[in-house]
Amino acid sequence: MNIGMIEAAAARLDGRVRRTPLLSSPFLDAIAGRRVLVKAECLQHTGSFKFRGGWSAVSALPEDLRRNGVIAFSSGNHAQGVAFAAREHGIPAVIIMPSDAPLLKIENTRGLGAEVILYDRANEDRDAIGARLSAERGLTLIKPFDEPQVIAGQGTAGLEIAEQAAAEGMTVGDVLVCCGGGGLTSGIALALEANAPGLRTRPVEPEGFDDVTRSLASGRIEHNARSSGSICDAIMTPAPGKLTFPIMSRLCGPGMVVTEQQAQRAMAAAFTRLKIVLEPGGAVALAAALYHPERVEGDAVIAVASGGNVDADTFCDATKRFGDGA
Amino acid sequence: MNIGMIEAAAARLDGRVRRTPLLSSPFLDAIAGRRVLVKAECLQHTGSFKFRGGWSAVSALPEDLRRNGVIAFSSGNHAQGVAFAAREHGIPAVIIMPSDAPLLKIENTRGLGAEVILYDRANEDRDAIGARLSAERGLTLIKPFDEPQVIAGQGTAGLEIAEQAAAEGMTVGDVLVCCGGGGLTSGIALALEANAPGLRTRPVEPEGFDDVTRSLASGRIEHNARSSGSICDAIMTPAPGKLTFPIMSRLCGPGMVVTEQQAQRAMAAAFTRLKIVLEPGGAVALAAALYHPERVEGDAVIAVASGGNVDADTFCDATKRFGDGA
Repeated sequence: MNIGMIEAAAARLDGRVRRTPLLSSPFLDAIAGRRVLVKAECLQHTGSFKFRGGWSAVSALPEDLRRNGVIAFSSGNHAQGVAFAAREHGIPAVIIMPSDAPLLKIENTRGLGAEVILYDRANEDRDAIGARLSAERGLTLIKPFDEPQVIAGQGTAGLEIAEQAAAEGMTVGDVLVCCGGGGLTSGIALALEANAPGLRTRPVEPEGFDDVTRSLASGRIEHNARSSGSICDAIMTPAPGKLTFPIMSRLCGPGMVVTEQQAQRAMAAAFTRLKIVLEPGGAVALAAALYHPERVEGDAVIAVASGGNVDADTFCDATKRFGDGA
Repeated sequence: MNIGMIEAAAARLDGRVRRTPLLSSPFLDAIAGRRVLVKAECLQHTGSFKFRGGWSAVSALPEDLRRNGVIAFSSGNHAQGVAFAAREHGIPAVIIMPSDAPLLKIENTRGLGAEVILYDRANEDRDAIGARLSAERGLTLIKPFDEPQVIAGQGTAGLEIAEQAAAEGMTVGDVLVCCGGGGLTSGIALALEANAPGLRTRPVEPEGFDDVTRSLASGRIEHNARSSGSICDAIMTPAPGKLTFPIMSRLCGPGMVVTEQQAQRAMAAAFTRLKIVLEPGGAVALAAALYHPERVEGDAVIAVASGGNVDADTFCDATKRFGDGA
């Protein structure tokens, strides 16, 4: 992995990816006690940064492989990112989802043109299903984070952050990133190392799913005790990746951990002050910026708001509970 | 009013205004049966396009007048736009609001640094209060729409639309604009006349408050029968302005009218598909694009999403009622 791969991904994404804005509000600055700049990746195609990695990986395939199509395992944002990238390339996408996935996510993934194959979590082996389909149809597996071209795609968000931070006069400070397996975090860290060396990337995780924070502290890959049970479903990955961890270990500052309630408060603050929709897992970086200012350094902080794929009930629980002040 | 004034306003706003993105979703395209491009002015500073006009008017004042400060009558988006523009210029702003305005709006306007003066709608004359304060302190009144530099500021959104539509390959079609007094609509119409003559501006209003639509049809200024009672509070203006109406009459296509329920459905669609927060009055243009496609012309349509200043209860009524499909 190197900056050249991220720049090449940016060239392939040019004109396809949305350059998401860096938003701010004096009310958020007042909460944090410093300038807060929010990179609104919830406004990306398919509602999360995952479209970047999906497009990057699909577009990097050799033409003869690509036209056979791609396959992914996901019930969430990666599924939609890969499905839309494949559709825009005019190639087939197969997404393998658990049969108990929310109907809306299944329908959305189908709505983006993918063939959705459901499996029974209890009695079927998804890897075996995937291997059989791949062999039969010549499909290429697009992994969600531990894959160089996916990391390169997510890193294009970091190239934009470097430019946008400079335009705001911010050359030193922390860039907080919602972190699951570390694809976005490591991609941004590589981009900032090259283009904005005064900015330090820091992963943010929800309580109970702080595998990356603990891994960075111990210097080796640590796992979460649980695999479910957080409202931050987008970032409940069990452990950092074999590719992403060494990058994060070399480049990132200490991880930060927020409570579910802080994530909900950040959703309410983003609703009231920025007019954007964040899912719980996409709000943890903003939560860290707003509610743990003592752990952040510098006069300004960037929080990456990584996604907004949330149902109305979950969203309204947060916004009605924490109201308009947050 | 001419394009030169809009270009001059754009120069004064450069680096201060947010260039808001043009968003889209294949799911919205499917509802409308054509491409739908949404100009997300809810992401503007203070949550609505009103910051453009506020900054334009404040920055156009001669220095000796400006330093005395400005005054505005508003309980809504104009108040916040003017207050923030004044604060960023380092000058005083006085906002005159009815004493029964929502506490949140009063607090937000104060939070943006303005002095808020409350008056009793039943027993006090707000114009007399404003005139006295202006005379005492040398304040300049910033009117909400029927003021050349305000129209010029709102028109800068039209300059961006012209560029963004061209980048999307759209050179012909309708641009639907949420319309109150016509400041935004007439400003955009002037900008498109000069920079994108194939795009036709059309005002959109809520049922019962269709003064502009009726005025365009009759050729003279018509008034609304009611002055309250719509959830679209941002655009309940009684009649088009003396400056804005002739511009709209010369340049706009026919107006469109949507129901409150259609505005709520559009809020839900924007929540689910675009991850943006719209207030009811800021959603009527998108509602027209999605739910009255037979009245729109062309392969693509632009809907201006003019604002997102809405409380959690109103927002969640819409999103929970119309759910995830909209």
